[in-house]
Amino acid sequence: METLTPAWTCSHVRIHVTTTRSTEFIDLTDRIERLVADAGLRFGMVNIQTLHTTTAVIVNEHEPLLLTDFQRLLEAAAPADGRYHHDDMAVRRVNLIEEERPNGHSHCRALLLPPSACLNITEGRLQLGRWQRVFLVELDGPRERSVSVLLFGEMLR
Amino acid sequence: METLTPAWTCSHVRIHVTTTRSTEFIDLTDRIERLVADAGLRFGMVNIQTLHTTTAVIVNEHEPLLLTDFQRLLEAAAPADGRYHHDDMAVRRVNLIEEERPNGHSHCRALLLPPSACLNITEGRLQLGRWQRVFLVELDGPRERSVSVLLFGEMLR
Amino acid sequence: METLTPAWTCSHVRIHVTTTRSTEFIDLTDRIERLVADAGLRFGMVNIQTLHTTTAVIVNEHEPLLLTDFQRLLEAAAPADGRYHHDDMAVRRVNLIEEERPNGHSHCRALLLPPSACLNITEGRLQLGRWQRVFLVELDGPRERSVSVLLFGEMLR
Repeated sequence: METLTPAWTCSHVRIHVTTTRSTEFIDLTDRIERLVADAGLRFGMVNIQTLHTTTAVIVNEHEPLLLTDFQRLLEAAAPADGRYHHDDMAVRRVNLIEEERPNGHSHCRALLLPPSACLNITEGRLQLGRWQRVFLVELDGPRERSVSVLLFGEMLR
Repeated sequence: METLTPAWTCSHVRIHVTTTRSTEFIDLTDRIERLVADAGLRFGMVNIQTLHTTTAVIVNEHEPLLLTDFQRLLEAAAPADGRYHHDDMAVRRVNLIEEERPNGHSHCRALLLPPSACLNITEGRLQLGRWQRVFLVELDGPRERSVSVLLFGEMLR
Repeated sequence: METLTPAWTCSHVRIHVTTTRSTEFIDLTDRIERLVADAGLRFGMVNIQTLHTTTAVIVNEHEPLLLTDFQRLLEAAAPADGRYHHDDMAVRRVNLIEEERPNGHSHCRALLLPPSACLNITEGRLQLGRWQRVFLVELDGPRERSVSVLLFGEMLR
């Protein structure tokens, strides 16, 4: 006899992205929706978390001209040619690596954007409004990037 | 004989809001607290997620003068009368709808604010500090808006 | 005979912090990692939520010069000596307390930063990239502050 008690499940996936520009908006929505479908979740959540300090995860509209507006806003908030103490290698003492490049502006832009997006799942579907898309935002590319995706919730057996 | 094993539960509700101004802060705290009480959760989380790209969900103090300061800050960051590529209908090709209105500034403001708030629940109560209130922020009103609220956690049977 | 079914668990801790400056970045990473280890979680999430309206929880690099860049960015976005309606005690009517101090700029800075960080746990470890650290950001110190930390997920018995 089969039980109707819902099972709880939790799974984890890493998404790898190769970015090609200094600032770039990579639309992850289709991949996230596929992960939600594959997990077989009925109700639950998915947490999409970047693993880098010069990237962000945002939810907004995928309209190419709008993405250039976003880039201009970020440039105004923290100009690439501004002066950042983080880039003053004559003074800096910690977290220095060989391939270090001046990226104070990238960290400052990341400060203004979220490092993760926590989205709801109901009736087996990712909850997203008509225009909502999930983006990994590259702020110091090009680079290899990784995103941690955790899904959990109630599974209908 | 009754078991003392905690049950896990997950539930979902949509909150509908009709906004009346172009920028507006709608306090959802009482509604969220009622949902937490109704769910009968002892420990868990609630994720309050907007379903729109020109709104946000914030946690801050509900003091009317402060909300005008917030509005001024958002206006300075992305002025309503600024120029946005997103609003250049002579060039734009995608996501065009009949009722399209110039709202590049609304999207840019939304970029700087979070699309969701993930809040903790302990001992049956929403964890909020003395002055913390949860707001849906309208950035392109007036409009009909929806918020997805997912609650899950351990229920004391 | 032992069962291999995973158990689900949910636990909550409050972290208390005494800040010493008006703006301060308190690195909570070691404490969060210890909580994750103590909880014995295999897969799950941790939600780190501030309980104040003039603080934030961010994830970024712990490099002292970079933290001064962040402070300068926040000062540019909402100057401490700017004029805020929230601080106009001749007009203000609500949420007034005896020890009230002018902190409109602190609230405005908090508006631009997240109130919580939701991080993934896999194979028993907090998912953080090489440079990622979790900070409580004090924006109106010095003060006594509290952070609510909720952990939940699948525990390997």
